[in-house]
Amino acid sequence: MDKLLFGAAYYREYLPMERLHEDIKLMKEAGINYVRIAESTWSTFEPQEGEFDFSSVLTVLDEMYKNGIAVIIGTPTYALPAWLAKKYPDVMATTSSGKNVYGHRQKMDITHPAFLWYAERIIRALLAATASHPAVIGFQIDNETKYYDTCSAGAQIEFVKYLKKEFNNSTQKMNHAFGLDYWSNRIDAWEDFPPIEGTINASLGCAFKQFQRSLVTRFLGWQAEIVKGYKNDTQFITHNFDFDWRNWSYGIRAEVDHFKTASVLDITGVDIYHPSQFQLTGAEISFTGDLARVTKDQPYFVLETQAQAFKEWTPFPGQLRQQAWSHVASGARLLGYWHWHSIHNSYETYWKGLLSHDLQPNPVYHEACTIGAEFNQHAATVTRFSRRSRVALVISNDCLTAIDWHPYHGHQFSRDALHQYNDLFRDYYDTLYKMNIEVDIIAVDDPRLFRYEMLIFPLLYSVSDERLQEINRYIAQGGHAIFSFKSAFADEHMKVRTCAQPGIISEAIGAHYQLFVDPDRTLLHSESLDLSADEVQISNWMELIIPDENTEVLARYDHRYWQQYAAITHNRYGQGTASYIGCHITPAALEKVYRHLLRNTLYQHDTMPTETFPVIIKRGVDKDENILLYYFNYSSEPQTVTFTEPGGRLLFSGKTLRQSEVITLKDWDVQIILVESTK
Amino acid sequence: MDKLLFGAAYYREYLPMERLHEDIKLMKEAGINYVRIAESTWSTFEPQEGEFDFSSVLTVLDEMYKNGIAVIIGTPTYALPAWLAKKYPDVMATTSSGKNVYGHRQKMDITHPAFLWYAERIIRALLAATASHPAVIGFQIDNETKYYDTCSAGAQIEFVKYLKKEFNNSTQKMNHAFGLDYWSNRIDAWEDFPPIEGTINASLGCAFKQFQRSLVTRFLGWQAEIVKGYKNDTQFITHNFDFDWRNWSYGIRAEVDHFKTASVLDITGVDIYHPSQFQLTGAEISFTGDLARVTKDQPYFVLETQAQAFKEWTPFPGQLRQQAWSHVASGARLLGYWHWHSIHNSYETYWKGLLSHDLQPNPVYHEACTIGAEFNQHAATVTRFSRRSRVALVISNDCLTAIDWHPYHGHQFSRDALHQYNDLFRDYYDTLYKMNIEVDIIAVDDPRLFRYEMLIFPLLYSVSDERLQEINRYIAQGGHAIFSFKSAFADEHMKVRTCAQPGIISEAIGAHYQLFVDPDRTLLHSESLDLSADEVQISNWMELIIPDENTEVLARYDHRYWQQYAAITHNRYGQGTASYIGCHITPAALEKVYRHLLRNTLYQHDTMPTETFPVIIKRGVDKDENILLYYFNYSSEPQTVTFTEPGGRLLFSGKTLRQSEVITLKDWDVQIILVESTK
Amino acid sequence: MDKLLFGAAYYREYLPMERLHEDIKLMKEAGINYVRIAESTWSTFEPQEGEFDFSSVLTVLDEMYKNGIAVIIGTPTYALPAWLAKKYPDVMATTSSGKNVYGHRQKMDITHPAFLWYAERIIRALLAATASHPAVIGFQIDNETKYYDTCSAGAQIEFVKYLKKEFNNSTQKMNHAFGLDYWSNRIDAWEDFPPIEGTINASLGCAFKQFQRSLVTRFLGWQAEIVKGYKNDTQFITHNFDFDWRNWSYGIRAEVDHFKTASVLDITGVDIYHPSQFQLTGAEISFTGDLARVTKDQPYFVLETQAQAFKEWTPFPGQLRQQAWSHVASGARLLGYWHWHSIHNSYETYWKGLLSHDLQPNPVYHEACTIGAEFNQHAATVTRFSRRSRVALVISNDCLTAIDWHPYHGHQFSRDALHQYNDLFRDYYDTLYKMNIEVDIIAVDDPRLFRYEMLIFPLLYSVSDERLQEINRYIAQGGHAIFSFKSAFADEHMKVRTCAQPGIISEAIGAHYQLFVDPDRTLLHSESLDLSADEVQISNWMELIIPDENTEVLARYDHRYWQQYAAITHNRYGQGTASYIGCHITPAALEKVYRHLLRNTLYQHDTMPTETFPVIIKRGVDKDENILLYYFNYSSEPQTVTFTEPGGRLLFSGKTLRQSEVITLKDWDVQIILVESTK
Repeated sequence: MDKLLFGAAYYREYLPMERLHEDIKLMKEAGINYVRIAESTWSTFEPQEGEFDFSSVLTVLDEMYKNGIAVIIGTPTYALPAWLAKKYPDVMATTSSGKNVYGHRQKMDITHPAFLWYAERIIRALLAATASHPAVIGFQIDNETKYYDTCSAGAQIEFVKYLKKEFNNSTQKMNHAFGLDYWSNRIDAWEDFPPIEGTINASLGCAFKQFQRSLVTRFLGWQAEIVKGYKNDTQFITHNFDFDWRNWSYGIRAEVDHFKTASVLDITGVDIYHPSQFQLTGAEISFTGDLARVTKDQPYFVLETQAQAFKEWTPFPGQLRQQAWSHVASGARLLGYWHWHSIHNSYETYWKGLLSHDLQPNPVYHEACTIGAEFNQHAATVTRFSRRSRVALVISNDCLTAIDWHPYHGHQFSRDALHQYNDLFRDYYDTLYKMNIEVDIIAVDDPRLFRYEMLIFPLLYSVSDERLQEINRYIAQGGHAIFSFKSAFADEHMKVRTCAQPGIISEAIGAHYQLFVDPDRTLLHSESLDLSADEVQISNWMELIIPDENTEVLARYDHRYWQQYAAITHNRYGQGTASYIGCHITPAALEKVYRHLLRNTLYQHDTMPTETFPVIIKRGVDKDENILLYYFNYSSEPQTVTFTEPGGRLLFSGKTLRQSEVITLKDWDVQIILVESTK
Repeated sequence: MDKLLFGAAYYREYLPMERLHEDIKLMKEAGINYVRIAESTWSTFEPQEGEFDFSSVLTVLDEMYKNGIAVIIGTPTYALPAWLAKKYPDVMATTSSGKNVYGHRQKMDITHPAFLWYAERIIRALLAATASHPAVIGFQIDNETKYYDTCSAGAQIEFVKYLKKEFNNSTQKMNHAFGLDYWSNRIDAWEDFPPIEGTINASLGCAFKQFQRSLVTRFLGWQAEIVKGYKNDTQFITHNFDFDWRNWSYGIRAEVDHFKTASVLDITGVDIYHPSQFQLTGAEISFTGDLARVTKDQPYFVLETQAQAFKEWTPFPGQLRQQAWSHVASGARLLGYWHWHSIHNSYETYWKGLLSHDLQPNPVYHEACTIGAEFNQHAATVTRFSRRSRVALVISNDCLTAIDWHPYHGHQFSRDALHQYNDLFRDYYDTLYKMNIEVDIIAVDDPRLFRYEMLIFPLLYSVSDERLQEINRYIAQGGHAIFSFKSAFADEHMKVRTCAQPGIISEAIGAHYQLFVDPDRTLLHSESLDLSADEVQISNWMELIIPDENTEVLARYDHRYWQQYAAITHNRYGQGTASYIGCHITPAALEKVYRHLLRNTLYQHDTMPTETFPVIIKRGVDKDENILLYYFNYSSEPQTVTFTEPGGRLLFSGKTLRQSEVITLKDWDVQIILVESTK
Repeated sequence: MDKLLFGAAYYREYLPMERLHEDIKLMKEAGINYVRIAESTWSTFEPQEGEFDFSSVLTVLDEMYKNGIAVIIGTPTYALPAWLAKKYPDVMATTSSGKNVYGHRQKMDITHPAFLWYAERIIRALLAATASHPAVIGFQIDNETKYYDTCSAGAQIEFVKYLKKEFNNSTQKMNHAFGLDYWSNRIDAWEDFPPIEGTINASLGCAFKQFQRSLVTRFLGWQAEIVKGYKNDTQFITHNFDFDWRNWSYGIRAEVDHFKTASVLDITGVDIYHPSQFQLTGAEISFTGDLARVTKDQPYFVLETQAQAFKEWTPFPGQLRQQAWSHVASGARLLGYWHWHSIHNSYETYWKGLLSHDLQPNPVYHEACTIGAEFNQHAATVTRFSRRSRVALVISNDCLTAIDWHPYHGHQFSRDALHQYNDLFRDYYDTLYKMNIEVDIIAVDDPRLFRYEMLIFPLLYSVSDERLQEINRYIAQGGHAIFSFKSAFADEHMKVRTCAQPGIISEAIGAHYQLFVDPDRTLLHSESLDLSADEVQISNWMELIIPDENTEVLARYDHRYWQQYAAITHNRYGQGTASYIGCHITPAALEKVYRHLLRNTLYQHDTMPTETFPVIIKRGVDKDENILLYYFNYSSEPQTVTFTEPGGRLLFSGKTLRQSEVITLKDWDVQIILVESTK
């Protein structure tokens, strides 16, 4: 793909008046070359059961085509019509909080045959009407699909069958794997299976989440199969994945295995929302991209990101452009705003689009015009390049769910503890991001795991013996691994290991522990890390680590009673190294640990990046080993960077750069430099 | 009415022993001349279905009459007997949180015919027994009536019919007005109407609130009609309205349109509770009075206010008397304590009355005796006077509900956002109160709106095109208007306007905006307002205002990127002026803005009040243009005031005052001065 | 009992592998001489209805017996099998929050006959299989039994019958006692009785709690009767009571009357959990012991306490041993850890036992070995001694529940207000604890109440006239009493008294009040107490006390308006004294008040303890008047104590002590000194 798709979600159905021609005119001026339509408006297309009307869509297709704007068609199944919920109330999911009421989107039971029957019919009718239209370049199936906490009777019956298969029909094996003797929770006949929403058994609870995630993969796979019956070879199937939502895209999703689910798609799409104004850092753009890109080892689509959005997010001058290039630098080849115009009624009235409610050009729209022009000018160049990461950050939905049950601070299922996994994931990711260490994000069960020189495991809590043994082997054969506290504690059924902790990797890290305590009044003491008074602070969790004789202790605890125990260790194991961080340290201390370990492993001979946040550098390489460098300034103050390559060319100005030349980046600026291979 | 009614709610039924004679003796010593009875004790009057016993009431009537104490009879319909809920469980309302359980008051469905049938019977039986008794001066229908969030099946059916009428039977018109294409929420057959409690459509949600408020008006109108069949011409019908409750009377009610509902009454009654001790400011007494008085352009009743109440409210010496005269100064002609005696069981045991649980005189009771004597002595004088306001603060239930859906800070429906409208309403009101600018409070759809010289509109968010055009005309013809941010944004269906904001009033204010942002790190910069370092702070909301050429900019933003936009503007439009405050400013800054605008409009030639809180001045005028001045000191420290009228007489001491004489107000004092007209 | 039982809960059923022999070997090395088994694993014993399998238990009994370890058998009724809940869903309780779902323990309806039928069968089957085994020394019936907020239909029917009996079948008497005329809540036919979970009547609500507590006593009495059919004379029946849970054992239980319920047992058992590490104070160990010991005036069992437990509780070196001797010093004769090994699955994976998940010896286990050896060596000596308290702290479940309805700060039923009673109880208890004043804790309705020289009543809110008159008589006859604010306010039905407050005890305390207010900006002023600037602070509650002429005022209020009222008073009444603390004072001020009052009463001639926390002293006396002294240092720093007895012997070292010798206590140390009687 040598093009950059640039566009927006477009809802002609929502607009209070006809203005398709005005919209297209403004889109063309902005360099918009695609729109996404149709994924939210089932009830407009089928206002009464079996009565179809795709006129709003067909007119858009014709007019867009005339004006050279491509269209992505979304299947409109994430929001039900009222008539369907009224006729078959069972299509509304029953969750752990009770039966859903119609109104909000994404409240249906995606396993219910009545829903599936009507969903299939609207998909087929929409595609029959639109798929062969020359404007249509691809299809988005459903939108931000999750399992919506379905605990419906059907899902529970299916879950029991899933467990029967998992345990070869033996309740005895399940009782043992899950420890169900505890509190008299044994199940000795499948008929006795209790309601899953009441369980207090973490193993059973996590198995249900795993099952629920498989429903998402199955549902999207089912849609993909339907779409394949209509699409031609040049048209793609994508989906708009979202991320753990903490008022913005915060971390990985409890509800979706992005890696497994991406396998049913041609191309991965994501939506990415992030803090802006003085809070813009680029970290969310980067981590979501580092995950999306890896799902299929290819460029990805940003099907939704913010234009004006909320009052806290309306971009400062320059930010919208900087964000656009940040996505591209991470490997995005499509950038879509949610959404073209602001909405005049209902729920998301204050989630503003490129146009305000007055539907006229405005400063944010004008900046989009600049982006469109730059994309058009430089697409052929930048799309030649791709990322090569030496380091991977390893994630796991199972571990995320497990930490929900057994958090490292706060109380189980408290607001404080929800998806706490992502807090440490973000600490571990963001610190690398700010050090300009480029990484891939990959799932622990991915077959491609061991292709990296270094693997970093935050909270690798719950994982099988086999996988841990493979990780040990990877290290023995020259790999480098960094583990956080609580890693390797439990097996894949969340049964805690009965050997010394941290389980099987104790061998590689050359250390073990029996006790873990609260860090109240404990500091770190390190002779090698040069930690400041702020950096010796630890919180929430500490393991009392006993190192083996030859294991290097990077930090010990400074405490009245625990001073004899290690906090952070580093060990040579075979040809590789294994490091263990046995407590919750600050991001600043983590940077010191990373720096120390990287200098002693990957960067023993190479040069480690010296620029740090707010200057962010991204690097692409093409098949001829030419390099494309992106320099970003994520701050309101100008920054300078010294150019260290032999020579290059600034893409926007065309200016030639010599080695050691100092480049000035304005506030919220981006510069792209092409470095020709000298080979 | 040349009398001041002074009394209390009296619950003989609640008392643990017979002591009617002792109570009446103590009442008479306190100057109490009326009691309100009967509104809470349906189950005492009808202990079993159809078995009536009004003996407790009849004895009270006889004894009160003998002792010259008048009685207000309350219809006892706000608290159901247990037997009724047991027999017909459907009388308990179903709300958005589910089905109510019997126990608490005000949990019934006021639209349910079983409730209405029994309610009518107890009203008729009570009135048949009591209405013609010579002690009875009037009737209170129900008590603090609201719609109790009823979402019962019957109410929902009726709501659909209400919308059918509103939209002339066209779902298409409704879909367009409410924007129901969004998230597939269209309704293309009335039979498909979904459960209203699930809606995420703000327009539909607000329409339902409007409908629910109409149920209150209808219910009280229905009761008034019943009562009219029993009362004679000298007897009045009143109701006890309450206010948005934030542990005290905080703002206007989401659930009741006080103006529309007051139309079914002869006289408006309210209950008023407020902070006390060091927190007593008089602001709540003032705003509730400025609203109640205007509902029917006549004096009103304070049917409930606090005596001892809670530990935080037990008045300091002097405060009870000060509060009493504050009510009278605002136009109250009846002052009733809730309640005579403290209650020995149940829920409100710690909401204490005039008497403590020992039922003996105490310091608070003794202060009531002083009030009773003063009321008796000065009633004929003070009741001759009434308020004349030049300024009105304009309110709207629709806007309050709209801001609940789209708050200016915090998240929709979060605790933080609930009735946030009232926070700004109180900022805008209380600042005027503390400046001693006397105002009326009036609803935006009231026909009397344009009789004022100045209108102030906090958060006039959702209002029809027609009304805005009338406001423009009012300004053009010489009126003065001040609007807050977010005004005029949406039409009466909460559809955001598609023109430049702030919609139709842009013309009058001479400015518009397209973007609004978060004020993080933004200050005000003003050359005309002389703002201190505290006063340049803004919070929550700011609109990036672009003034027209001739529009005066009172303040701009001080910000790295938004400094070119205006924050507060002032514009001559025709014969009048329109001012716009485009961000959330501090009360202290608001006072500076008010002062600036008032000096340039109403007080260009008149003298603006110079005394400020804690000295509060209220003014009444009689038909002969004599003036009555109330001076209050809302503080623990003595205050002095310079008397500026040509001459007057202190009502309590009889002392004559000369111009420029300095009056000393003790802590928590009140002085009343009669200024005879010199005309 | 001349032995100290030392052991743990042991769940062979939970272990992931067979290791009974390894466990027993480690137990013996630790000096463990008993285990508690079987109370949690009904579904293991009866995996399908009527199919019993006690093999896991029987093997444990055999092996323990062979190795000289005794066994306590628990009846396994607090956690239901899944098959039972599936077959008879009604066994799951309906609470005020709705119907329970199966999963968590203690969610059943302990009044439901289907539950009772199956519970009886499993108890009988288990006991038939095990009771006569020579290893079995006793039985624990159920575990931490409460009423689980049951509001099931059956319980409500029974409650109505309970009230019928209480009020001699007269709804009229009930209406009067409970004040049900209020808000039309009268009940004039028993058939009309409304659902109790909806009531807003505090009297009715408290009566229901009282009834619910009686269900616990009845349920355990029923189990005890069953067990008696199987046990022999040397075997005991105990129960494991727990305490108000605020992440640890915080106060008395709303749900259980420990005194009444203990009457069905042979020996009282309790579980005791408490903060540890730097937060360890011993206060929870002490208060729970001072209550448990008094229930039956005999030693008690600590059936559960923490070993490692949570990361915040893993003991510092020395703490586990100190805790063990603290329990013994309070009168415990059995000390059991919860639990032997950590659990590898489910809910309490992070509630660690003596062994970590690796099931190997560790530092905490090693300290347990020391304890086992010391217990074995000194049991015969220390068990000869028992406590003699001159002072009792008086508690009441009814008052606790009453204060839930009418808290002294915060809002009714808010999180803040929940069991607020215990906050003051702990202030009043902990201050005595830190002064080394040894006390008993006793219920206000206990016949043994008046055997003490001094009674201290925190929040004696709701109590009958008769009991108050007896308290007056106790004082008149030479007793000393200290009452907190809000005491004696209401009768046993929570009807507030109609006399001057504090009700009937006004006579003894020589003071009364009519008003109570918020202490905002109020300080104490005292001429006799020597209060510091911190100690004059008061909060939450203050009563405006009017002392009689001869009553000593220990402190007045310092306030602009309330300075004429007393805050703390002291009065001679007959042969005794009565003191009243009319506001919420700080613990530091409370210590000054206690010291003043104790010096003027009990310690007029005796020596008051001079050592204070962190040095804690406990004292036992045997039948020959020999004394056993325990000295504890609850801190990380060494402490010194001067020995004041004529002579003694250090139990651990055997060293002889002379009077005035200085003893050094290491951090977290305990020393036990035997002082032979010189009589």
